[in-house]
Amino acid sequence: MPSPLVLSVDAMGGDHAPESIVDGAAHFLKGRQRPVRLILHGDEARIRPLLARHTALAEVCEIRHTDQTVSMDAKPSEAVRRARGSSMWNAVHAIKDGEAHVAISAGNTGALMAISKVILRMKSGVHRPAIAASWPVPQGFCTVLDVGANVDCAPEQLVEFAVLGESFHRAVHRVSRPSVGLLNVGQEELKGDQVVRDADTLLREAGLDMDYRGFIEGNDISAGTTDVVVTDGFTGNVALKTAEGTARLVGGWVREALTSSPLAKLGAALLSMGALKQLRARMDPNNVNGGVFLGLNGVVVKSHGGTDGPGFATALRIALEMADSHFLTEIEQNLARLEAVQAAAPQSGSEEEHA
Amino acid sequence: MPSPLVLSVDAMGGDHAPESIVDGAAHFLKGRQRPVRLILHGDEARIRPLLARHTALAEVCEIRHTDQTVSMDAKPSEAVRRARGSSMWNAVHAIKDGEAHVAISAGNTGALMAISKVILRMKSGVHRPAIAASWPVPQGFCTVLDVGANVDCAPEQLVEFAVLGESFHRAVHRVSRPSVGLLNVGQEELKGDQVVRDADTLLREAGLDMDYRGFIEGNDISAGTTDVVVTDGFTGNVALKTAEGTARLVGGWVREALTSSPLAKLGAALLSMGALKQLRARMDPNNVNGGVFLGLNGVVVKSHGGTDGPGFATALRIALEMADSHFLTEIEQNLARLEAVQAAAPQSGSEEEHA
Repeated sequence: MPSPLVLSVDAMGGDHAPESIVDGAAHFLKGRQRPVRLILHGDEARIRPLLARHTALAEVCEIRHTDQTVSMDAKPSEAVRRARGSSMWNAVHAIKDGEAHVAISAGNTGALMAISKVILRMKSGVHRPAIAASWPVPQGFCTVLDVGANVDCAPEQLVEFAVLGESFHRAVHRVSRPSVGLLNVGQEELKGDQVVRDADTLLREAGLDMDYRGFIEGNDISAGTTDVVVTDGFTGNVALKTAEGTARLVGGWVREALTSSPLAKLGAALLSMGALKQLRARMDPNNVNGGVFLGLNGVVVKSHGGTDGPGFATALRIALEMADSHFLTEIEQNLARLEAVQAAAPQSGSEEEHA
Repeated sequence: MPSPLVLSVDAMGGDHAPESIVDGAAHFLKGRQRPVRLILHGDEARIRPLLARHTALAEVCEIRHTDQTVSMDAKPSEAVRRARGSSMWNAVHAIKDGEAHVAISAGNTGALMAISKVILRMKSGVHRPAIAASWPVPQGFCTVLDVGANVDCAPEQLVEFAVLGESFHRAVHRVSRPSVGLLNVGQEELKGDQVVRDADTLLREAGLDMDYRGFIEGNDISAGTTDVVVTDGFTGNVALKTAEGTARLVGGWVREALTSSPLAKLGAALLSMGALKQLRARMDPNNVNGGVFLGLNGVVVKSHGGTDGPGFATALRIALEMADSHFLTEIEQNLARLEAVQAAAPQSGSEEEHA
């Protein structure tokens, strides 16, 4: 039997913590084969009673008490200064200390990113971390990054994202040679701004041994045209949230159609025997909850702040997949190639301009 | 009886022209109360036989022959030089000549934009045109702009888009005081790049007498949080196409659910008595086909190049609504206010940097 993977959990992060966190951990544990252990960081007096309801979970959990938390609306710079000893800080530090394989938090995104950078440091060859999201497509998932860590990106960063995203997709979604696309607009005249065009040139000419397919458009994401979709954090964040909003709108229309008349309700009742359940599950944003921070010396997973138990369970599953994968090895190999390329290529000198 | 509104149509633009264009015009005409006339620009030998099948349409149509067309993949700069006398050029020129109230084309977007700028010129106070899309929301439609004309935007341009979009929404969607939001990302740390932050300051302090609501996020678009959504053409184009892709993906899941088993099929058969038809109509991208060019001395509507007849009919309906509205008067009033503001505000000087 393999030794247990250890997940380090910020039990106080998120709008409904610690209840949603413990509930999520219990969901996550059900039917799991692979042995796991969880370290829950937070207020023992609040966590202990919640844990008492879940015997199986309590057996694999260890509580590390702290009464300090990072507030959901703290500014990252401020959070970092005050964060030492908080549940979020301790959750990330457990990776650095070699106690855990991966850290998970539903707390303040900016603070989590800042704390992770301070504690874990960037991997050599990566300038800024990216957040990767797994996005449902007809054949499974594609990987979209960055979805919010970097609002302005130089071309070299987009190349880093391509390298990080390709490693991530191979490790987590088990595609041996993931295809990579660069998100752009379609008009022939414009074909994107200079940053995207420069990144395209770099990716084509870099000799990264990557299945780079060139420009793709917004509709290609959900179509699954490429396994990895590279974009800056502003566009990626807007795209991700636009897709969530669209799925919710269409979901409302579907619900309306299914309850629009007695006959429709009868139809829906027949349907709901299974097909509708699957449909509902597919459209549930909880099932794609969990953005992974890439580029750090360690794996940190961010759950939506407003998540409930089942949503947090998804973030834990993603964290476990990451911990159980060869992601960190993958990425080191890819980064070595990238560093060689970066050394060879002239800098665009636009880093500051875009910062 | 009011005098007929005149629509000037590029009958040769689009992947399936002129068949889809004539077919779309026939669809458009059915059940219309308001008297209209259409001028069809293009190859008479090809258009005449198509028109012969539609007696009512033929009565209100006039064919203006030309055997020149603008190809779908021509570069805009090149297209402008060679476009004189083409069906697209003539369709736009009919507005300038006072023969028509609005022009419609399903041809090359970049070429149509370039030709429109050359023939109609920008309205005083507007630096670059924007493309506005009507986007379905629970309560009807919101207006999103720019969705592709300008990939890089200075803060002043985003303010122009707000003014153009507000006028458009009031004129076409008949909301007396449309609310306006600026698309951004949510992370507290980042809150967008400098351009978006500067635009936000300008909109707050400009005294435009506009119901400006500040930053919104991607999920707010389909939720209908504000009537008008302002963004640069890169982000707007990606968001629009991402939403189309997501609707298509979810549509596929719905279809799958409805045909997953004999029982599901029976349920779907009961449902389809009406509710499913409405659902299908709502999810049909044809029903939102038609981007409107704003900021020109005249109204030009762009249909998807790949549209079929019903889709082109939607673009014609949008064009008719624009022609029948007070949009051009609205916009002149708003632009006068904007000019006063621009004269008072210091230039950010970043126009070139972002161009």
